[in-house]
Amino acid sequence: MVDADTADDIEREFYEAMRSGDVGRMMALWSDEEEIVCVHPGSPRIVGPLAIRASYEGVFASGGVAIEPEQVRRVRSHASEVHSVVERLEVETEDGPRTVRVLATNVYLHTGLGWRMVAHHASPGSVGELQEVAETATTLH
Amino acid sequence: MVDADTADDIEREFYEAMRSGDVGRMMALWSDEEEIVCVHPGSPRIVGPLAIRASYEGVFASGGVAIEPEQVRRVRSHASEVHSVVERLEVETEDGPRTVRVLATNVYLHTGLGWRMVAHHASPGSVGELQEVAETATTLH
Repeated sequence: MVDADTADDIEREFYEAMRSGDVGRMMALWSDEEEIVCVHPGSPRIVGPLAIRASYEGVFASGGVAIEPEQVRRVRSHASEVHSVVERLEVETEDGPRTVRVLATNVYLHTGLGWRMVAHHASPGSVGELQEVAETATTLH
Repeated sequence: MVDADTADDIEREFYEAMRSGDVGRMMALWSDEEEIVCVHPGSPRIVGPLAIRASYEGVFASGGVAIEPEQVRRVRSHASEVHSVVERLEVETEDGPRTVRVLATNVYLHTGLGWRMVAHHASPGSVGELQEVAETATTLH
């Protein structure tokens, strides 16, 4: 069983499932609602548990993914949370290993079974440090 | 005042604010929480109401945006909703006008003031029809 006392538990489990390349573990942390949505970087959206499972089978075909969450921003309410995550990935390129950063939005709902993921949206990544613009950004004023 | 009886009301208002290029109208539909997040296509994430306001001042500098929401998928709970939207934009290019489609995830919470947007994440667009992979997709099996 997934330890799902908090949305953070589910998020930790999500990235551990990514690193381990374990589809069963990945799908156990998603809600089983028909309208759950997953957007892999640069891909069409994928809707529903069966299609999402099939997509992770593709992602994990060559094993786990070297990925770490960073700089998590959270909007919390009683039974839902939105996390904005900078995902740091180590990837092999023609020029050798590179660090890529991807922006992801993860949404969690508290269900009868505990917290579950209902949406994951990741944008195409960029090499190097990703910028964040926040309240203190002087360039905006 | 924003008509905010449902998350769909706020979403309608979001796209009307985009088309009208009205920053005040746009910001009235966002939550005023410090951790609200906006990702414009291909851009860094923007955190907090002041920074998000500044970003829309930039987006609207040359007027409203020709944008229409399509193919909305919703995960609903009592006080939060996640909408996956295909945004259809009409843009001018060197080769003339083109239709571009952008995938967006919009998250709404029910607050003391009614429904409000707390996250908007849009990926870079693609020209032409965007594919969706759903339960019925035969290519996955």
